[in-house]
Amino acid sequence: MLVEDITCRPIGVIRSPHTEKKDTPIQPVFAKGVAGQVEVLPQYEEGLRDIEGFSHIYLLYAFDRADGTRLSVIPYLGETERGVFATRAPCRPNALGMSLVRLLRREGTVLDIEDVDVLDGTPLLDIKPYIGRYDSRDDARSGWQEDVDDDTARELGRRGFKRGG
Amino acid sequence: MLVEDITCRPIGVIRSPHTEKKDTPIQPVFAKGVAGQVEVLPQYEEGLRDIEGFSHIYLLYAFDRADGTRLSVIPYLGETERGVFATRAPCRPNALGMSLVRLLRREGTVLDIEDVDVLDGTPLLDIKPYIGRYDSRDDARSGWQEDVDDDTARELGRRGFKRGG
Repeated sequence: MLVEDITCRPIGVIRSPHTEKKDTPIQPVFAKGVAGQVEVLPQYEEGLRDIEGFSHIYLLYAFDRADGTRLSVIPYLGETERGVFATRAPCRPNALGMSLVRLLRREGTVLDIEDVDVLDGTPLLDIKPYIGRYDSRDDARSGWQEDVDDDTARELGRRGFKRGG
Repeated sequence: MLVEDITCRPIGVIRSPHTEKKDTPIQPVFAKGVAGQVEVLPQYEEGLRDIEGFSHIYLLYAFDRADGTRLSVIPYLGETERGVFATRAPCRPNALGMSLVRLLRREGTVLDIEDVDVLDGTPLLDIKPYIGRYDSRDDARSGWQEDVDDDTARELGRRGFKRGG
């Protein structure tokens, strides 16, 4: 089986108010209204054309401050150890993060975004548009996550980040 | 701004009936019922624990047969040139692909999957669980994709792959 390495070069950087891992919400849905920016390198500006038509975009990025790889983790929303691929924890064999954020506007190579759960200064690798008919599944079963009720998830998922109580 | 490269090492390979790019559906929703497998390298088996609880998973992979980078593309579903970040085309600055597929079962390090729009032999970089409350957006606006009606999208999106007419 192939094991050839893949090299990615950051195309920009993600800006957010989150500077401490422990205070960073664990998912965009727990970071509602938190503003940030995507600063794309000038040489990629042409690739951003038409992106402003989309209300939501996926950011793919490097978990550049992850603490190495662990194959079993206790997720933030649970008390039981799970395989890392059954979680969204950063300590993955390839430290690739994915966040679905709201796109408010584009000015040149800067995207104003909301619902940001990413650490300030995170290296951006790719942007993909969220397309309702491709990306939503009504019939999904969400494994161990279904044992965590929505209120508990929201409370724990925000972590240290509290706005207005 | 940082430009330090990120190195990813494949954690496995994706198996599918798709061997020709031109006959490969452009999205999982246009590959309904198409069976495939994810073969994860044995050293990562521990990370797969509990994944079988999820009905859908994201595969992150390398577009290893993409024809270089283009910042403007005419999408398969359109006739107008768009910025590549407003599309899901493979010719991205970082050739990272993402597919949301149905997970049928796990046997050790092999995942049986469905709705596979990925070329056979594609290097797998990460697996993330699809979690309804994180990953679905009811209020999304889908830019130029909204100009393509669902029937046209389905017909074009399957490309050469036809099963039973």
